[in-house]
Amino acid sequence: MRRPNSESPAERTDEDEFALVEYLRERFAGPPALAPGDLGIGDDAAAVTPAHPGPVLLATDLVVEGVHVDRAVSSPEDIGWKALMVAVSDLAAMGADASHALLSVAAPPGFPVARLADGVAEAAAACGCTVVGGDLSGSPVLVVSVTAVGSAPGDAPLLRRDGARPGDVLVVTGPLGRSAAGMRLLGGPSTPGTGGEDPVPPELATAHRRPVARLAEGRAARRVGATAAIDVSDGLVADVVHVAEASDVGLELTVGEDAVAAGATRDEALGGGEDYELVLATGDPDALAAAFAAAGLRPPIRIGTCTDHPGAFTLDGGPLPQEGWRHRF
Amino acid sequence: MRRPNSESPAERTDEDEFALVEYLRERFAGPPALAPGDLGIGDDAAAVTPAHPGPVLLATDLVVEGVHVDRAVSSPEDIGWKALMVAVSDLAAMGADASHALLSVAAPPGFPVARLADGVAEAAAACGCTVVGGDLSGSPVLVVSVTAVGSAPGDAPLLRRDGARPGDVLVVTGPLGRSAAGMRLLGGPSTPGTGGEDPVPPELATAHRRPVARLAEGRAARRVGATAAIDVSDGLVADVVHVAEASDVGLELTVGEDAVAAGATRDEALGGGEDYELVLATGDPDALAAAFAAAGLRPPIRIGTCTDHPGAFTLDGGPLPQEGWRHRF
Repeated sequence: MRRPNSESPAERTDEDEFALVEYLRERFAGPPALAPGDLGIGDDAAAVTPAHPGPVLLATDLVVEGVHVDRAVSSPEDIGWKALMVAVSDLAAMGADASHALLSVAAPPGFPVARLADGVAEAAAACGCTVVGGDLSGSPVLVVSVTAVGSAPGDAPLLRRDGARPGDVLVVTGPLGRSAAGMRLLGGPSTPGTGGEDPVPPELATAHRRPVARLAEGRAARRVGATAAIDVSDGLVADVVHVAEASDVGLELTVGEDAVAAGATRDEALGGGEDYELVLATGDPDALAAAFAAAGLRPPIRIGTCTDHPGAFTLDGGPLPQEGWRHRF
Repeated sequence: MRRPNSESPAERTDEDEFALVEYLRERFAGPPALAPGDLGIGDDAAAVTPAHPGPVLLATDLVVEGVHVDRAVSSPEDIGWKALMVAVSDLAAMGADASHALLSVAAPPGFPVARLADGVAEAAAACGCTVVGGDLSGSPVLVVSVTAVGSAPGDAPLLRRDGARPGDVLVVTGPLGRSAAGMRLLGGPSTPGTGGEDPVPPELATAHRRPVARLAEGRAARRVGATAAIDVSDGLVADVVHVAEASDVGLELTVGEDAVAAGATRDEALGGGEDYELVLATGDPDALAAAFAAAGLRPPIRIGTCTDHPGAFTLDGGPLPQEGWRHRF
């Protein structure tokens, strides 16, 4: 990790900066510990040994204040947690593990970067990965960039978006719409003024503030031969269409009540996004369900099948609006 | 690479976003091409095979408008070039190669992200690395985050900051102060109103706008047993003190005119930073010079020696101001 540069906000002194970097170095020291010979924070670059041989998995995500997070709804710790998890979720969607991460924070004067780092560290510990570097800068607006690095155990192929085949069953790893419902009830940016009247169900607030990457689900799905996967970031409809288009298949979606989270609307489940559940395609849904049960995971929820009519997408027998879901919330 | 989310600036339509992602996918397709089986832009995560066995090198840097770059001085292409190069420079300072990179851009409405990507692609081609993923978002201010991924050929240990020993000679890979002089003459943020009167020497303007990571120098230095390295990002004095403190050695610096770039002041050479030359420590400066000559590189420039008096730092026989250089420019 480079030391923060002199360009940081004037309010932050050199002493503050050095103290912050020392805090981060200790906060991110693990567990998990680095492999012998690996280098974490403190040099020009980190040097790491991924957990498994084979290709190195890389994913990166931005979290921008006012775009992805609202400081009136999420604490600095929540923002850090989310920034780490959304990057790791991309590795989960490949069926891979996360072993290491890099954290960069461009923060306005006075923003409690150490508290954000606490949330990153909690999320990293929950994912079994170690923060090994990053960068710090001043900025008029908070921008957090996390890069997650991982690898995949075993020989099963990675879960790509383009592997779904006609006849494959589509499932999700959990009910959807929780994050969007949580944001609505917390009075987030998309529905100003509507929150606060009633207590927000904790599971919805937590789903919005502290999403969880479905690493175990992705790993189990890859092991039993799931053919494709994506994480629900943009929204179920948008994301499953990504898989269908990449795989050149059609979709017959049948999204039942079991796929809609308690407290969420159907629209929030179909289009809300940011749930970070996985959509999986598989030719053997019984094997997938058995693998999930054996691993102590929630049963996968069926949401449709893939067809041999590329570009033909239906929802509960009617036409699926191919546009319009991404921007509804 | 995740598709840009709905939260992007309203001015940018979905069609624009999709066209931009398609543009980036083609622009970053290489060369160099990905290894067979590797995955680049288009899935949840990239999957890459570093060029060499052993640990994976990771470095990440932020470039923030108004902090690290001034759009009145640097074009979007320049900003992209610099963002890629400063991350790769951290790998050069370990004696490693760069093979892959991730690019995230948080940009205000109307910012020409495609032009920035052109600069990233030019720099990546110059470094022999391939952009394999990233993220896009709207933001009130331009923030660019690049993660560089690499590995090190051969068995020589990585060039760490903490390996310098008493008696080692310190060298730099080129004359310093060019970036600071270029910024001054171009009328950059630190000296408003002073630029524009005279033509700016192209080599100074280019040094500021398009720094070059010293990959070949780092590689050659590692091969012949250099003991420590750092890239000059904060400024020579600040950066060489990082090495001395990490290595627990003292410094006797003798910075001659050969270490000051033509057109730069001595202060700019000592404290300007952002030159991205490497400072190297070595017990065998003749072998280093011979290796540089054999590789067709400029001769290393001696700037002092390491002593067995940790914390004692001198410059040309007088006391070295241990504070104050970082913020002079």
